Amino acid sequence: MSSKPSIPKGTRDFGPEKMARRNFIFSNIKSVFQLYGFLPLETPAMENLSVLTGKYGDEGDQLLFKILNSGDYLSDVQDISEGYKKLTTKISEKGLRYDLTVPFARYVVMNRNEITIPFKRYQMQPVWRADRPQKGRYREFYQCDADVVGTDSLICEAEIIGMLIQAFGLLGMNDFTIKINNRKILTGLAEAAGAPGKEAELCIAIDKLDKIGLDKVREELAERGFSSATIKNLDPIFNLSGNTREKLSALRKIVAASEIGLKGIEELETVFKYAAFLRLDDSKVAFDVTLARGLSYYTGAIFEVKANNVSMGSICGGGRYDNLTGAFGMPGLSGVGISFGIDRIYDVMEELKLFPESAETASQVLVANFDPDSELVALGILSELREAGVSSEIYPESAKLKKQLSYADSKRIPFTVIAGPEEIASGKFALRNMKTGVQESLSVREIIEKVKP
Amino acid sequence: MSSKPSIPKGTRDFGPEKMARRNFIFSNIKSVFQLYGFLPLETPAMENLSVLTGKYGDEGDQLLFKILNSGDYLSDVQDISEGYKKLTTKISEKGLRYDLTVPFARYVVMNRNEITIPFKRYQMQPVWRADRPQKGRYREFYQCDADVVGTDSLICEAEIIGMLIQAFGLLGMNDFTIKINNRKILTGLAEAAGAPGKEAELCIAIDKLDKIGLDKVREELAERGFSSATIKNLDPIFNLSGNTREKLSALRKIVAASEIGLKGIEELETVFKYAAFLRLDDSKVAFDVTLARGLSYYTGAIFEVKANNVSMGSICGGGRYDNLTGAFGMPGLSGVGISFGIDRIYDVMEELKLFPESAETASQVLVANFDPDSELVALGILSELREAGVSSEIYPESAKLKKQLSYADSKRIPFTVIAGPEEIASGKFALRNMKTGVQESLSVREIIEKVKP
Repeated sequence: MSSKPSIPKGTRDFGPEKMARRNFIFSNIKSVFQLYGFLPLETPAMENLSVLTGKYGDEGDQLLFKILNSGDYLSDVQDISEGYKKLTTKISEKGLRYDLTVPFARYVVMNRNEITIPFKRYQMQPVWRADRPQKGRYREFYQCDADVVGTDSLICEAEIIGMLIQAFGLLGMNDFTIKINNRKILTGLAEAAGAPGKEAELCIAIDKLDKIGLDKVREELAERGFSSATIKNLDPIFNLSGNTREKLSALRKIVAASEIGLKGIEELETVFKYAAFLRLDDSKVAFDVTLARGLSYYTGAIFEVKANNVSMGSICGGGRYDNLTGAFGMPGLSGVGISFGIDRIYDVMEELKLFPESAETASQVLVANFDPDSELVALGILSELREAGVSSEIYPESAKLKKQLSYADSKRIPFTVIAGPEEIASGKFALRNMKTGVQESLSVREIIEKVKP
Repeated sequence: MSSKPSIPKGTRDFGPEKMARRNFIFSNIKSVFQLYGFLPLETPAMENLSVLTGKYGDEGDQLLFKILNSGDYLSDVQDISEGYKKLTTKISEKGLRYDLTVPFARYVVMNRNEITIPFKRYQMQPVWRADRPQKGRYREFYQCDADVVGTDSLICEAEIIGMLIQAFGLLGMNDFTIKINNRKILTGLAEAAGAPGKEAELCIAIDKLDKIGLDKVREELAERGFSSATIKNLDPIFNLSGNTREKLSALRKIVAASEIGLKGIEELETVFKYAAFLRLDDSKVAFDVTLARGLSYYTGAIFEVKANNVSMGSICGGGRYDNLTGAFGMPGLSGVGISFGIDRIYDVMEELKLFPESAETASQVLVANFDPDSELVALGILSELREAGVSSEIYPESAKLKKQLSYADSKRIPFTVIAGPEEIASGKFALRNMKTGVQESLSVREIIEKVKP
């Protein structure tokens, strides 16, 4: 009956070391969310497929993990000749959540009469996607989102900038850029250039500027049906230079004829004003007119964070949307949110060696187990350490000291207390610093003073 | 396209208030696990069905949530005439985890060469069971387990008692009983009574003593094939009285002829000795020879915690097992663990009103939004509050003050700062205590002193 066990592809175990580091990231981000007045929400892993389907496009629907109905799910199925897609609708009613946004929208609609608007929630839970696994892409991964819904105040956008600066500061990641744009500016640009409604095509093309160069971007625009006059009209946006203020002022001229474009610029300027009054470090923030994040459902601000000098895609993304809950019959609820890419942040921090030692150790002290008599004294020391709030453990058996020290080493426990018959007789115990190998002879009280973090 | 959204039956959303309370429970238990040197582990929600199947009995296999293979899962299926059970093996390879023990065993086996033995891990994650939902029984619920594997030292059992006492102390639940028994004693009792190997039947019967009384228990034992001589032999265990020491001493005579029974008593006595040297409060611990917890896979200690004076089943359970990883080809690994029943602990704490206020509030301060000019000053106050570590938020729009105060009330925010034109001119702002309604006129520095938790 014994089999060699395995783990589903695209999924991961997080052992103690990885967990400590991940918890360091989670707990710092969580503390910032809380400092800014966001409240926690958790939704179930399973959602009804009626909630999930149709929210992520056809491709997304294919990537949903679907759960077999329990019991005899075939009792109403006659045959399978209509193919698997049809059969799925008959044998599966539930799926695993694909992101945190749709469950959040469902929660808001179902609890519309109880929640306090504006509603500020954060949510840190795994999501599942039946994507082909590859480096950095998993079938189970955490999302870590904060959203405010029920207000269109641009203070929320400025506060997102504040949260990002503070969170990455706490993580020790100081070299990053918060890119910001506004969907209305992109809409305005398309209008002003003579291609109204075509901001999606425009964005896809200009998004490639860095990679393929201006000439190829122009070619691509032409292929996408932009007239040569329109392409010429767009020229100035490829030549935006200077700081954010200068860029916005140049853009203002370009979109002068577009009401919505001017609105977008004004919104951005208001966000920057609020950020200044919140005393935020504006050197971290860069306006980027090419930032589109696939546009998806964003209607106002668009955010993205990039770690500088590291080869890694964006580590955070977000923006404002005007219709979170429309699909559930509750239109017109505006909101703005940000999502931290935990896996990528982890990888960047590992590459830059940013995890502090405190995010690595477990117990602060190992109490060695000398022999069955001394063991009982060791238990007393252990209880005093814990009483003082010092994470500690005892080696559970009286094994050879060398083995016990190697246990402490491999668990990165910084101190070992040795209480053999001699130490017990003297009332002074050996405290060994596992890094330096130095041993001191100390009372329990002195030991506690030394090892307290 | 709009539909009224719903949530799968047996699952729950945890909104901000419930989350705060649940987090209070989780974080306290976690702090105890860490104080005792346990390290965190997380495993994926999905496991291969080859790992899960056959580990929980036939009934358990039926209760596994199974996940449809992605893509055209019917491509190798000819027909469905063999029924749903056969079809399931063809169209589903993965299931949701049913508990944390089997994934832990899988992890240990897969990482046997990297982990440090003895391995102490804790794990707090949801599990899923396709059970019929009813009051207090959910299809998704958290388990919260701590286990040590790779040692048979009874210090571990004593430390579990220590963790239980400390955890419930931190939660403010002081009226509880830790019941303890030992499987070997039950085995010895069955042997000594002349019914070797029948401890399961014995336990089922004596477990009902409280409910059905001694005569009925005797009847049931007879029905289960125990001879009248055997039943008479068992009489003394129904009459055990006195404290733990006295009970064990009486039991010692009853199982005198059973080597394993005596071993069980000796183990328990050693656990109590260790507990004493760990300076644990033994008034919380009660030996209970009828405690069996379905016996399941326990081979030594069996634990259970009951909240006293509350109508609720056990709120923790656990014990020692000798063969955690045998099903995965790694026999002989002994371990002992404890599992906290979070949902029941939550209900007991709610019934006894044990949640502290600190587990309820969100932001400490709401900064009111008076008008578009004052708003900018308010943002400065907000940033100073946060700088000082005070969780705060600003009402994002300049709505009527009454509306803003009612927002603070419904979110249980204890303080509101009001900064209108008059306050701004004077440099003293109004700090309103939301409970008492009292307002004081204070500088920002004074406000911070007042509101710091």
